[in-house]
Amino acid sequence: MKPVVSPEKIDHVGIAVKSLETAVPLYRDILGLPFLGEETVDSEQVRVAFFRLGEVKVELLEPTSPESPIARFIEKRGEGIHHIALSVKEIEGELEGLAAAGIRLIDERPKPGANGTQVAFLHPKSTLGVLYELCQPGKSN
Amino acid sequence: MKPVVSPEKIDHVGIAVKSLETAVPLYRDILGLPFLGEETVDSEQVRVAFFRLGEVKVELLEPTSPESPIARFIEKRGEGIHHIALSVKEIEGELEGLAAAGIRLIDERPKPGANGTQVAFLHPKSTLGVLYELCQPGKSN
Repeated sequence: MKPVVSPEKIDHVGIAVKSLETAVPLYRDILGLPFLGEETVDSEQVRVAFFRLGEVKVELLEPTSPESPIARFIEKRGEGIHHIALSVKEIEGELEGLAAAGIRLIDERPKPGANGTQVAFLHPKSTLGVLYELCQPGKSN
Repeated sequence: MKPVVSPEKIDHVGIAVKSLETAVPLYRDILGLPFLGEETVDSEQVRVAFFRLGEVKVELLEPTSPESPIARFIEKRGEGIHHIALSVKEIEGELEGLAAAGIRLIDERPKPGANGTQVAFLHPKSTLGVLYELCQPGKSN
């Protein structure tokens, strides 16, 4: 049986933090992850710091407003791992296949992510408590 | 400043699940991760199913006893991501460096992990809520 999705790798791990000012030195100077840059994503109400870890990126997500989904996550569960993004090639067809296989989707259609990517989240109730994002690289990546 | 640790990549992501019987088909047939095998680790009271995801392994951890740390994790937080293991080269020196930098260690010295690895966990109170494992490959890896 051909699986519904065939992710090539983890694109990134998203980690919810209260403060980039505290978190960036921990990741850069202690854990030794090369720092790639920082970006504010207004639509998600987060400030993001990017790090390299082999073929995976680590994204630290700091809420910029109490209404940010990341602020609500931290309030409920504390700081910690928020999601894992799987790198895929044909996100639209894969979302259809997942829905047909009974997986509940948070985003039924892909939406624009950082760096020209197309992204969509699966509902963790369908994936045993893990919040997975599908992430299709932009044409320039 | 030279960072304390310089991990090469994520060795694996550990995910707590109630039942491999339910979880393995989700990961293999729906999410499309190649299944690598299964192993029981008596010392940790878990049964582990291994999958490939690019250069990273995904480990699904099912408790084999209610006293297993994974059983207690699931009871408290539900199923979900349990830890991230960083692949390192000189685990003993790195643990010393982390302790000197004020990072609280769960394991002050490395202990034997699966496949001849040497592993040690850092305390999530020191790493902003994320449970990190350092993992030094065995000589045969």
